Parts: sequence; structure tokens; C-alpha cells
Amino acid sequence: MNQLGVVHRNIRRADPDAVKALSKFGSATVHEAMGRVGLMRPYMRPIYGGAHACGTAVTVLLHPGDNWMFHVAAEQIRPGDLVVATVTAECSDGYFGDLLATSFRAQGACGLVIEGGVRDVKDLSEMRFPVWSRYISAKGTIKATVGSVNVPVVCAGVHVQPGDVVVADDDGVVVVPAAVAAATAEAAAAREANETEKRKKLASGVLGLDMYKMREPLEKAGLRYVD
Amino acid sequence: MNQLGVVHRNIRRADPDAVKALSKFGSATVHEAMGRVGLMRPYMRPIYGGAHACGTAVTVLLHPGDNWMFHVAAEQIRPGDLVVATVTAECSDGYFGDLLATSFRAQGACGLVIEGGVRDVKDLSEMRFPVWSRYISAKGTIKATVGSVNVPVVCAGVHVQPGDVVVADDDGVVVVPAAVAAATAEAAAAREANETEKRKKLASGVLGLDMYKMREPLEKAGLRYVD
Amino acid sequence: MNQLGVVHRNIRRADPDAVKALSKFGSATVHEAMGRVGLMRPYMRPIYGGAHACGTAVTVLLHPGDNWMFHVAAEQIRPGDLVVATVTAECSDGYFGDLLATSFRAQGACGLVIEGGVRDVKDLSEMRFPVWSRYISAKGTIKATVGSVNVPVVCAGVHVQPGDVVVADDDGVVVVPAAVAAATAEAAAAREANETEKRKKLASGVLGLDMYKMREPLEKAGLRYVD
Amino acid sequence: MNQLGVVHRNIRRADPDAVKALSKFGSATVHEAMGRVGLMRPYMRPIYGGAHACGTAVTVLLHPGDNWMFHVAAEQIRPGDLVVATVTAECSDGYFGDLLATSFRAQGACGLVIEGGVRDVKDLSEMRFPVWSRYISAKGTIKATVGSVNVPVVCAGVHVQPGDVVVADDDGVVVVPAAVAAATAEAAAAREANETEKRKKLASGVLGLDMYKMREPLEKAGLRYVD
Amino acid sequence: MNQLGVVHRNIRRADPDAVKALSKFGSATVHEAMGRVGLMRPYMRPIYGGAHACGTAVTVLLHPGDNWMFHVAAEQIRPGDLVVATVTAECSDGYFGDLLATSFRAQGACGLVIEGGVRDVKDLSEMRFPVWSRYISAKGTIKATVGSVNVPVVCAGVHVQPGDVVVADDDGVVVVPAAVAAATAEAAAAREANETEKRKKLASGVLGLDMYKMREPLEKAGLRYVD
Amino acid sequence: MNQLGVVHRNIRRADPDAVKALSKFGSATVHEAMGRVGLMRPYMRPIYGGAHACGTAVTVLLHPGDNWMFHVAAEQIRPGDLVVATVTAECSDGYFGDLLATSFRAQGACGLVIEGGVRDVKDLSEMRFPVWSRYISAKGTIKATVGSVNVPVVCAGVHVQPGDVVVADDDGVVVVPAAVAAATAEAAAAREANETEKRKKLASGVLGLDMYKMREPLEKAGLRYVD
Repeated sequence: MNQLGVVHRNIRRADPDAVKALSKFGSATVHEAMGRVGLMRPYMRPIYGGAHACGTAVTVLLHPGDNWMFHVAAEQIRPGDLVVATVTAECSDGYFGDLLATSFRAQGACGLVIEGGVRDVKDLSEMRFPVWSRYISAKGTIKATVGSVNVPVVCAGVHVQPGDVVVADDDGVVVVPAAVAAATAEAAAAREANETEKRKKLASGVLGLDMYKMREPLEKAGLRYVD
Repeated sequence: MNQLGVVHRNIRRADPDAVKALSKFGSATVHEAMGRVGLMRPYMRPIYGGAHACGTAVTVLLHPGDNWMFHVAAEQIRPGDLVVATVTAECSDGYFGDLLATSFRAQGACGLVIEGGVRDVKDLSEMRFPVWSRYISAKGTIKATVGSVNVPVVCAGVHVQPGDVVVADDDGVVVVPAAVAAATAEAAAAREANETEKRKKLASGVLGLDMYKMREPLEKAGLRYVD
Repeated sequence: MNQLGVVHRNIRRADPDAVKALSKFGSATVHEAMGRVGLMRPYMRPIYGGAHACGTAVTVLLHPGDNWMFHVAAEQIRPGDLVVATVTAECSDGYFGDLLATSFRAQGACGLVIEGGVRDVKDLSEMRFPVWSRYISAKGTIKATVGSVNVPVVCAGVHVQPGDVVVADDDGVVVVPAAVAAATAEAAAAREANETEKRKKLASGVLGLDMYKMREPLEKAGLRYVD
Repeated sequence: MNQLGVVHRNIRRADPDAVKALSKFGSATVHEAMGRVGLMRPYMRPIYGGAHACGTAVTVLLHPGDNWMFHVAAEQIRPGDLVVATVTAECSDGYFGDLLATSFRAQGACGLVIEGGVRDVKDLSEMRFPVWSRYISAKGTIKATVGSVNVPVVCAGVHVQPGDVVVADDDGVVVVPAAVAAATAEAAAAREANETEKRKKLASGVLGLDMYKMREPLEKAGLRYVD
Repeated sequence: MNQLGVVHRNIRRADPDAVKALSKFGSATVHEAMGRVGLMRPYMRPIYGGAHACGTAVTVLLHPGDNWMFHVAAEQIRPGDLVVATVTAECSDGYFGDLLATSFRAQGACGLVIEGGVRDVKDLSEMRFPVWSRYISAKGTIKATVGSVNVPVVCAGVHVQPGDVVVADDDGVVVVPAAVAAATAEAAAAREANETEKRKKLASGVLGLDMYKMREPLEKAGLRYVD
Repeated sequence: MNQLGVVHRNIRRADPDAVKALSKFGSATVHEAMGRVGLMRPYMRPIYGGAHACGTAVTVLLHPGDNWMFHVAAEQIRPGDLVVATVTAECSDGYFGDLLATSFRAQGACGLVIEGGVRDVKDLSEMRFPVWSRYISAKGTIKATVGSVNVPVVCAGVHVQPGDVVVADDDGVVVVPAAVAAATAEAAAAREANETEKRKKLASGVLGLDMYKMREPLEKAGLRYVD
């Protein structure tokens, strides 16, 4: 159970080498390398094209219409962290803007993922502070009710533990549990090496049907050609 | 009650000085300055990034699938106006395109906000004619049924009176009633002045917790830290 | 009835001259020229701004979470084709990425329209391989179940026959049946010629009310002016 | 502008005779009688089939996740009132349940319309306390921030003034401004009288084409028959 | 291409015996029997629980906000027909109510499927006139623009030809092309016979794992058990 | 990380007495008793009115369009279990129908919660087998790819561990972690006792303002009354 009103100061962050290794890959590659799990729902979109971030999760649990906990979270940020925020109800308010981004960056954060809204998107884009959110909304929030920092949260359909690695880009947001970060980075590297070769072949006109030897399994699966 | 088939030729526009003053601020600042009311639903999005407009509302009430009233509205536009259009039902048609934008601009309009669809978005973007809409759709409309111009309308959850000030940018669309336009501009200016100072402090690493003196109220609200 | 497990190798593509003629127009113009039919639902959006494509449809019917048929489709692509894919259920997976785009382009395809998700959107944008999709998702798919290629499909609310012309841009996606492609191109040309003249007049301040002689029909329809 | 933190104790309710007259009609008839305006968005649905209510609006403006104002509103209810509540942001929480319904009914309220969520729907259904809402959600709310009572609000796309008549049933929710309540009731009665006769004819097999004399206008509009 | 302004008076209806045979099965069984194609999107819902209908399609193409064609369609209805209506744009108006239902029933129609809205749902429910729709809305429509009757339409993602068989119940709406109606009915019967036996076994506690002999294929597919 | 292709045979179910105690309360009460956490998104709805279930979670992770794992899950069901299923992508297929319900019931299951679709809802309703789902769809699924049983899953925004208690009714679905089941049941009982008294007072006309002593805090919060 998520406990409300709690801030965990000590969290176990994923191994920095694994984070660095994962930062070289896109979310699609990482998602494949993990066995196709850990991807947030596709409504989580970057606020500007070309956004990319990879960091360790500092989690925030907010009340609807209240962003007080973001100030509490700022103090828990260490260089290389990425803040993952969720709200206890569906609420489209703009919980985050350029002032908080300035503060988060000053503490070392490399981005934000929020199941809620953000504002000042023009400023955030000019700052190149990457944010993935469900909504964009000019509506501000109050500071009246305590939530939590660094408790496990569910964000856009994925369970996130503080310290997990978050890889986010134009294709979406993937969460890699700290325990499998290194193994996932290795699998991603293997996969990527593989892709350059394939791309070259396909570009030369070789068909996937032949490259992947699919003709026989397709025939077995019952595919028939009609002229 | 919105009356159908009526065009009000004389509307009381907000004070031009107040409009000019408001035009310097973004929608988030104006929304805060108004006490967090007057913001349209977040599904109203600009058709291109960086769009910004501030003008006095000429309102249009359309029938689903019919854009006849836009031609009637064009004649009512005065320099500095911004057209706010709504449809009597949810209908995703493209009611507005580059020809109407050319006409609206020739009459002095600085933008369009529509709870419906628009088309020719590439042309509109190249013209830098800013539009906030719910849908983008190539589907054209007919000219068969009369609606109204310059009656009060509800657009994306906000009640708009002809002559109200509309401030729109990447964060959304805010409506400032004409009567409070000057006061809102002042409040926005005060707020903005305040922000530059705060931004500098936060960038230097000062925490919001300290800058806003939040530690005590958080403790009183029951927040506890766990190591 | 769509037959599952079938690939039609011979399809009747629209006349190349008609395709070329249609490629000069935007989706809004083509949609008007066809009598306002054939437009896909507005949730079909390009993955990058300014995308434009016009080609003959090679259709693909996919199973949810399975993109096997794309490899089968690649072999059926002829230069100038545009792939139109649909899924037998609503499913947001990313069925298509940069490897398949490389292969499709090598075979001569000029774009993809898919009622489903795509990934690698940054790569696809850099390649300028235009895609219109319902979702963007990093989630990959399996290759386990056969669907069909070049059967009639419904995509985003429009019935598409293999060989039909597809015109897609920032405003949406229009499908022109092969049989009416030439006539539609002619109607579009007539329409476009007409628009340049109108645009000039409107820009000079002439009102649509006068240019289109709308004052009398509006009065007959009951519109009244109030001062 | 909606003022936050205000309770208007004296509101001008629509004429009781007009309310009584309107209570005999369904929302579709009333909506037609008003000239097809004033209907809330179709996502407002009754929590049980067959719900019907007609009363004068006591309006409530809530903060997201906070239902404090409902207790303030209870004191302002007079027999025959119907509470219309809206939230300053989209938020699906359950703001209302069986305890508040008990209190509202004790004060004389005949129903609730809320652009937000409700809970205890089984109890509310058994009590036959009719509610139209956007969401059903077990999630409770806090009591921390003041909103307003009896200010003008926008609810599900309609501007509601305190004292307006609200007619709600299985087809939706219509708002009749107090000033036109009597006239609308008359128009509704005329319309209804008319319908009984029509229904009989149609049931006997007479076609609407003939009863409404549509054949000639359809031909003029260009309809053609193909055998 | 759907032609606007056309009424086809002679359509080829599916064989009455096949329609009668199909009327004994639910939409899920028919959908399976067809090879899992032909199902409308799940947003098509019956207006009352337990609704069931099976008939031959008379198709209607409507303009947004305009239901004129329903009166034209009434004349084309033959006993056993089911009207399938679609709108050229997404528009939530209430195109159909109890008067039209009275007329349609008098002409022999057994139901309506509409990608749009309906009203008078209480009356329709009491009449037991089954309707599947996307929206319920009290909002009425005008009669100003001609659409078509008995042209091929796309409704909720399915291509419907006049005369096809439509099977609709609580699970959704399936369209069976006239040409395969008899074969589909046979396949459905075979499937249903099969199910009674299975249900008995499962109820007695036999596991599907054993009844369908799944243990071996699951093991081959890599499933492993952990204690 | 959810592991694909795994079935955990031994799970730690919540204490049966706690489950029994929790079964007496509705989801709203339990949600309050837990401190307002653990509620699934409001799109999870019962397939029939008045549905209620309380049981220990057997979790299932499905592939889009594939329900093979339900047969594997059946063997893991113990009397009093409630199956919680999620899909690795958003996919509206009907994964569950009356045959599986028969099997699940025979094994002792008291209900199903699924972030996906179900079919045969008429049969399920007649059997009184309660199901909460996101979609209703006649579309069947294949049996080709292995998922998992009894791994932790995220369902409709809530993290569910096998053995957790699930309480579901007309208001929604709440998940109570096994470790806090007993404490939550006690808190719920205390809360409910409290409510009967309150209900009586409110029914007699006492205002919540007085019963909860809200007048002073409201005044402090700045609420003002206007006559």
C-alpha cells in the first residue's frame, strides 16, 4: 500500500554504469530487451519532439490539484535522477512549470514523467528540460495536502519503485527495475548490434521474408497466395 | 439562452489598454492572476508550436457540419479581435481553413479558438495565423443553417461574452471577462515580477522548501521523513 | 468478408496519371472534389509536421499485437504504393518501425497509414518516411498469426480497396477509389484554380458575404441583425 | 467571472408554475421547445435507468478532489431545488454519496447533476435519489479548500445561472433559463400535443415522407431514386 | 465511393432462411463462425439490456446534425429489415426517437444500428424497439441536406452492404455478408452444439487444460511452473 | 519486472477471516478505510447492476488478443479467489465468456476483474457471475502465446499482488494488500458504525455544517456569504 505523508530519504538507485549503458538506447530497444514489459501507456507523450532522458526514479505521489510534494521531492533529487509523478485520481491540472524545472535541474534532475498535466511548455522546451505528461494545462495547483515521496507508485500502467531506471523518448516511457538494469543494457546492446546489419540488407532490397526465413512458417500457418 | 439566428453588431469590447497589458503574459500567468478560473479544457490545442494570441472575443455559434456563420462573423471583426467559435453539438468537421483565415486577417482578427475542427493547417501555420482547436480535419462543411454571432457562448467549458479578452498560447486558452481585464493585467504583472527573483534563487540551488518556508506547515500537515 | 490468410498478388492499381495528378493536391481539396466522402477519422495523425504522401494502396490486415503480415506485404509493394494497414481489434501496439520502413522504401513504398501504433518515430522522421497512425508506442509485436494482404479493409472509418489512391497530409487521410481517381483529380484542379482568385479578393478586404452573394439567402434563412 | 469563496444566499428561482409545467416533459421535448440549445454534453448520464428530475438550480463550484462546498450548499437548498455541481478541473473523484443525498433530500432537493464523480450508487438507486454524473468512482474527497455556491457555472458545456430550471432524464440534461421557463413550457406542450397525432398516423403505416410533405423538397434538394 | 443523394430501391437481401437460422445465435457465436471478422467497434452499445435483433440491412448515410434521410429510408424498409445508419462525420446528435421507431416498426423493421446518437430511450425501451448506438442525446436534428439510402456504408469500423445480415445483442453488432450468410449459420450451429457438451464438462470441474489437451503445447511454448 | 511464461503455484493469500470481514463492506468504505489508495480507474465497470464480490487475487497477464492463460489460471483457482487479469497492451477483445465463467466457478472463483473485454454478458448476468471490465466485445481471442499466472500485475492503475484482497461493487474495484487486510476491515467497521448515526441526523434535517462543526473552519478559510 502506498503510504500517504511519507518521504523516504534513502533509496537504492540502480547501478550508475547500467544507467549510463541504458542511456544509449531508445525506449523501443529497451522495451524489447526487457521482454516487452515495463512500457507506460501510449498517452504519455513528450512535450517537445526529440526529447530523450534516462535516469533513476525519484517517485512522487500527488493529490489531485495539489503539487506541494514537488517541493519536498526537490530535496531528494540526486544528480542523474528523473522524477516520476502520479496523482491519486485522474486530474488534468498543470502541476509543474518552469520554476520547478529550474529547481529540479539545479538539484541534478534530468527530466520528469507525470501522469497529470504540466504548463509553461514553451519555457520548458526552450530550457530543453524534457517532460512526458498526459496533459498540458495552464491550470495551477494548490499546496494544501501532503502526499508522498519515494514510495512505489503506479504511473500510466507501470509499477515504479524508487531507484528504477526510466528510459524515455519520442516513442514512450519504459521502466527498468534496478535489479535487471545491467542485464537489460546488455540485451539492448546485443539487439542493436544486430539491427545495423539487418537495416543494410533490407535497404538493399532483400526481403524480411527471406532474411528471417519466414516463408516456410507462413506456409505452415496456412497463408496462401492468390493470383 | 443563446438565441439562434441573431447577429449583435455592437458589443462592448474590453479596454484596449488592458488588452495590450494582458498580451504580455502567458495563459498560465493570467489564469493564476484571475484566481484560477476561466481556463478552457486542455483538449484545446494550438495547431502549431509557439502560437500566441491575445484579443477581444467575437463569438460565433455554429451548427454541426455548417460554417456559414463564419462569413457573417467576418464583417463583425474589428482590429484586435479574436474569434471564439463553438458548435451546438460535438462534431469534428473542419469548419475553418486558409481562405477564411485570409479574410479574418484582412478584417483585423489576430486568431481563432474553436470547439470543433480546422483544416489547411499547413497553410495556416505558414501564414502564422494562430488557431486553437479540438480537432484537425480535412472535412469541409456546408452553408445551410443560420447560427449566431456575438451572443454569449460556452467554449471548451468556459462561458465567453463578446468583448471578453482571450489569452492563448502553448499552455491553453484563458478567458478574462472585460470587466476584470485591467485588474487581471495588474495582478499578472505583480506575479511575473515576483517570478524572476524566485527563478534565480531556485537556479542557484535554494530549495522551494526554504524559499517558501514550507518545512513547518508540512510538518504540521503530518509529513514524516523515513531514513 | 475479409478473408484471413490470403495474399492477393495481382491488384488493379489506379491509373498512374491520375495518381500523379492527385499528388499535387492536399487532402482537404481532394475530399471536397470527391463530394465530401472518403475521409478517415481525424484521430489519424502524421508522425511529423509537413508529412505528405500520395500513392496506391497495398492493404494489410493484422492481428492485434502481431505484425507478421508486414513482411509479407513488403514483397507485394510496387514503386508508388502506399501501405494501408488495419488491425482486427483496437490495439495500441507499435507494429512498425525503422527496419520495416527501410524495407518498404527499398521496395518503392511512399508511406504508411495504420489504424494502430508505430515506433522509432524519431528515425522515421529523420528518414522522412511519412506515417499516419492512431498511436505512437514503443511496444513491439510478435509474429505468430497470419492475416491478409491486398484484401479490402476498413481503416479509420473508410473502406479501402487495394489499388485505391490515398492522399495524406497534415489535415488527414483521404481515399479515392481507383475508378474515380481521374475525375477527382480534374475536379480538384478546377477547385484549386478557383481558390487563388478568391484568396486574393478576401485578402483585399472583400467580404465572403459579398463575394459569395450570401446576404440574401441569409436573410431568407431568418438571420437578423441587432444593434 | 466565477468568484471563489462566495455563497449567494438569495437567488431568483424560476416561477414555480413554470417549473411544474416543465416537469411534465422529457429533456428531448424541452430541448426542442427551446430551439435546440441548452443541452449538456452526452457524457452526463443518469446513475440508474428511468431517472427523471426537474428543479431549480442551486449551483456549486468545487475544487478537484474536494467536496467541502456540498455541505455549504445543503443549507441553501429549498424544496424543489436541484443541485448542479462542477469542478474547476477534470477530476473523476466521487464527490457525493448516500450521506449527502440524505442531507440534500432532507432539505428538499430533488436531484443532482455533477460534472465529476459520485459513489454509493447502489444506495442512491435504492433511495431513488436521481443523479446525473460524468463518472462513478468510489474515491472519496477531502474538505480543505473553499469553492462557491450559487455563482454562475459551466456544467458539461452549458452555462447555468442559479435559479434556472434543469430538466433531466434518460436522454440527458437540459437547462432552461429562468426568464424563458414559462414560454418554453408552453412551446413544449404545443409540441407534445402535436406528437400524439403523428405517432398514430405513423403507426398505421403512413410514411413521414407523405405526412410531412417531404417528397417535393427532397426532389428539389437533388435526391434521386435508382432501381 | 458513397454517392450522396441516391436511394437504391432494389437491393439483394440475404436468403430469408439463412437470416432465420442466424437469428438463433448470439453475436459472439456468429463472429466466431465467420472467422472473427465483421464485428463493429465495442462502443456500439444497446440502449437497454437484453436487446437482440437479427435482420437484413437497409443502409442510411446521414449528414451531421441532419436526419432527413431516415424518412426516406422508412419507405425502403421491408419486413425483417434492420436499419444501419452512419454519419459523414463524428457527431453526437440524437438522430432517432420514438416517432421514427413507430414508423420503422410499422414498415417491418426489427431494429436500428447507428454510428451517432438516439433519444427517447425510455420510450424506445418500453416499446422494446432495439437500438445500438454510439451516443444517447436529447439533441434533435434538422432536415436540410440529402444523404443516401441503400449505398454501401462503413459503420463503427465495418463495411456494410445493403442486404447483409446484421446480428446484434448485448455483446455487440456483427455483420454477415449476404453471400456467406447460410454458411455462417451452419458454422454457428456446429459451434453451438459443441459448446453445450463443453459447458457440462467444465461445470463438473474438468479443466480446459485437459479438455482441450493444452498441457503439451503450453510446455512447448515455454510455460514453466514455479512452486 | 513481470516475467512472461511463468505460473506461480504457491501464493500467500490474505487471511480468510480478514477477507470475510472485508466482504461486508462496499468499495467506497474500504477505500476510505485504507486511506484513499488502492482504487482502480473508474473505467472499470460491472457488467450488471448490483454486482458485488470480495476475494483473494489470482492474477493473470495476457497478450493482446490471446486468452490462453485463462485456462492455465483456472487450475490455480482455490475457493474464494477472484481472478484479476490484465493485458500487456490496450486491446478491447473479449477474452472471457460463459464457458470460462463456468470453469472458474467450478474451481471456486467468485468473480473476475479484467483490463480488457468480455463477452456473453447476458449469460454471465444470468449466471450471476460478477465481472468488472473495461470493454464488452463479442470478439474472440486466440491461444498462441504464453503469458503468466500469479505474478504481480498492474490493473487499471493499481498494483496487484497475488493473494491481495479485491473488493468490487457498483462503485468500482479496490485492492487491499494482504498485509493490511485485517486492519482495513477493522477501520471499515469503525467507519460504518459511525455512518448510521450520521445518516439519521442528516435525514432529520441537521446540516453537515453543524454536525461536523464546519462553520468556523470555513470562515477561517475565507468563505463569505452574500445576500
